[in-house]
Amino acid sequence: MTAKRSLKFGAIVHGVGGSMTTWRHPDVQADASVSFDFYKRQTLKAEEGKFDLVFIADGLYITEKSIPHFLNRFEPISILSALAAITSNIGLVGTLSTSYSDPFTVARQFGSLDLISDGRAGWNVVTSPLEGSAKNYSKSNHPTHPERYRIATEYLQVTKGLWDSWEDDAFVRDKESGVFFDSSKLHTLNHEGEFFSVQGPLNIARSRQGQPVIFQAGSSEDGKTLAAQEADAVFTGHDTIEEAQAFYKDVKTRAASYGRKPEDIVILPGINPIVGRTEEEAERKYEEIANLVTIEKALDYLGRFFEHHDFSQYPLDEPFPELHGIGSNSFRSGTDKIKQNAKEQGLTLREVALRAATPKSKFIGTPEQVADKVQEWFEAEAADGFIIASELPSGLSDFVELVVPILQERGLYRTEYEHDTLRGNLGVQIPANRYTVARQQAEPQPN
Amino acid sequence: MTAKRSLKFGAIVHGVGGSMTTWRHPDVQADASVSFDFYKRQTLKAEEGKFDLVFIADGLYITEKSIPHFLNRFEPISILSALAAITSNIGLVGTLSTSYSDPFTVARQFGSLDLISDGRAGWNVVTSPLEGSAKNYSKSNHPTHPERYRIATEYLQVTKGLWDSWEDDAFVRDKESGVFFDSSKLHTLNHEGEFFSVQGPLNIARSRQGQPVIFQAGSSEDGKTLAAQEADAVFTGHDTIEEAQAFYKDVKTRAASYGRKPEDIVILPGINPIVGRTEEEAERKYEEIANLVTIEKALDYLGRFFEHHDFSQYPLDEPFPELHGIGSNSFRSGTDKIKQNAKEQGLTLREVALRAATPKSKFIGTPEQVADKVQEWFEAEAADGFIIASELPSGLSDFVELVVPILQERGLYRTEYEHDTLRGNLGVQIPANRYTVARQQAEPQPN
Repeated sequence: MTAKRSLKFGAIVHGVGGSMTTWRHPDVQADASVSFDFYKRQTLKAEEGKFDLVFIADGLYITEKSIPHFLNRFEPISILSALAAITSNIGLVGTLSTSYSDPFTVARQFGSLDLISDGRAGWNVVTSPLEGSAKNYSKSNHPTHPERYRIATEYLQVTKGLWDSWEDDAFVRDKESGVFFDSSKLHTLNHEGEFFSVQGPLNIARSRQGQPVIFQAGSSEDGKTLAAQEADAVFTGHDTIEEAQAFYKDVKTRAASYGRKPEDIVILPGINPIVGRTEEEAERKYEEIANLVTIEKALDYLGRFFEHHDFSQYPLDEPFPELHGIGSNSFRSGTDKIKQNAKEQGLTLREVALRAATPKSKFIGTPEQVADKVQEWFEAEAADGFIIASELPSGLSDFVELVVPILQERGLYRTEYEHDTLRGNLGVQIPANRYTVARQQAEPQPN
Repeated sequence: MTAKRSLKFGAIVHGVGGSMTTWRHPDVQADASVSFDFYKRQTLKAEEGKFDLVFIADGLYITEKSIPHFLNRFEPISILSALAAITSNIGLVGTLSTSYSDPFTVARQFGSLDLISDGRAGWNVVTSPLEGSAKNYSKSNHPTHPERYRIATEYLQVTKGLWDSWEDDAFVRDKESGVFFDSSKLHTLNHEGEFFSVQGPLNIARSRQGQPVIFQAGSSEDGKTLAAQEADAVFTGHDTIEEAQAFYKDVKTRAASYGRKPEDIVILPGINPIVGRTEEEAERKYEEIANLVTIEKALDYLGRFFEHHDFSQYPLDEPFPELHGIGSNSFRSGTDKIKQNAKEQGLTLREVALRAATPKSKFIGTPEQVADKVQEWFEAEAADGFIIASELPSGLSDFVELVVPILQERGLYRTEYEHDTLRGNLGVQIPANRYTVARQQAEPQPN
């Protein structure tokens, strides 16, 4: 019954990179994080590779010790809208926090991006891990982890409700009769919940893909539950194929328990592929990035996951310190794993920090080797596709130019876009307007 | 001492128009309010006319009786960012409410638009007139008029403070030494005020124009005070040249009382020019729009200024009804004027509604006649330039193609952009970074 699966790809565009030190690589454009020209070139390269989407991550709190890219970067709605204007098929997905924003504004902004791009918008729903965010938003406290997820769940109910304010055929625009819209197809949400009270209607209509695609990126229990209930796609990350398979199965099973089909939710691990014409070249490229990491910057990097905790106060070559509760209200799934690994493997602080801060790549080698690995994960149901989060300045173009053609030849990946909406390309459902569905259900059916 | 004044122009891009009925004109693209292609064409036309800026208005609350354009339109940050990608010189100005948003997010979004466009962003600071907005934002009450302006004043202190988080030379990006930024040039705001507590720093740097241009559009006493203190430009509207002159002088005098120079604040009335090759053609074009207005739609239009008050309950040909307090917490300067005119001139409800709802044009006639009027207002210090808010589908292109060349010939208006930033073209100051200024003042001066 299920249509043949085919690989999906996204590309994170993240300026000078996701590590503390990659910006020092000689080929990195040092101001890439605020260069529209850089974002444009990367996005056009991804579209040349027939990628489903580009992805813009985000954060709401920085300190002096933040990753360089985080200090000075474009905000997602604005950069994605700019990219919409110069592309035609690729999806445009960005992170926006439900803990520090208003659903009416966010529904409008993603709705507007969805219309500007004619059905290519996606929203990565996050709850904001960093406690410091509260200080930038006039809040006395960062909500607890379970509360953030309760907020996010209600928030999605509100935004999805607002997006349905206008049925798809509501705008008649009949100049002769003077009827601009059919008022029976305009709906007021009147949401009254634990965290939000939002009347509506929204002042923007749906796009050709119905609603923006919902991404979810948290891997905690709460995150997986939210994804299974509400998300069209999951952006995740795993160290081993076994872990990825377990996660994949877990999320798809949870989704089934909410009455959803496995193909309704697409699982996309982030990977950092390193492709060389030979294995040696790939290894050399990796070393060029890995060797930039210093222990000082590694401690800063590690600290961020624990509320910017200062790890320089501990001896480097002793066992990883006891941290008690620090960090438990931020990146929960990440910090739990760091602590567990340190304990199980008896790692020192130096080892933990360097492991965390050094860009890793499980997808390294010749184009054929990387394509094999992609195929292996895909066929083993460890992934429906991948988000290319490349640390190497040439990483995305290497992948598009060298690996994509192999996957296309093997019949695993499109040679042309099947659709010009993001939902169409990802193969996820266009959600029918809830009010249209209700009316159709209420109407007598033709025999 | 003052540099020679030269005309400034902006263009409102507003889809199917600012009236209830213009969308029925045969030449109007009926889905213009959500057509990126329409916004692109209008913006490129304005850039062809060497306009300083395009302007996107906004609102946060609709009802069935709203102006058609308001029901389903792009959100400003997203559409301006998309337009940034396809233009190179024109400024990009949008409305955003200080009553229903967070300063950290707004500072980021306009900061990001400012970097994407390389120094062409502007923010029209509004306090949101419509009480109903509260219902879309989980608020029990719309703040009172004076409170909205107190919020706006503090809000601007916060955003301007956040925009200065990074001094202009903070990002060193020295790959050799590993210094990405000079930490002495990163500043934390630590704002604690009546309405906001915002720590900072902002995670985005300043553009070449220092900070986005601040527009203000309220004409109430509070609005004029805010403009005089904080704005670089004022978007206003007047029925007569005398009124415009009085407003112009008032705002410039108020600005002087805050230690500002007259040229630090640019005053731009909105006009709806109607240009024909002959007077008769212009008149005919006007009638094509004016004749679309019906009394039913005129009552809806009038109602919006009074909290969507239902005027159909009153007799049409009796004196304008007593409304007591209705509408006093929304468009204060507008409703005061409507009530005052009705009383002074003894108007009926029908007369008031039709006057309000029928697009007006004081700038109507042949290209020479319209150019004369523009010149008259400009030289009489009733305006530093104009925002073209055209109701006619051909209004903007008529103005650019027929009137602009005359103004250029007369030496009143640029034939080429002088700058590629919005501040540069408007001739308003680039605000020096406050921390750079403080450091320079603290340093011993060279002899």
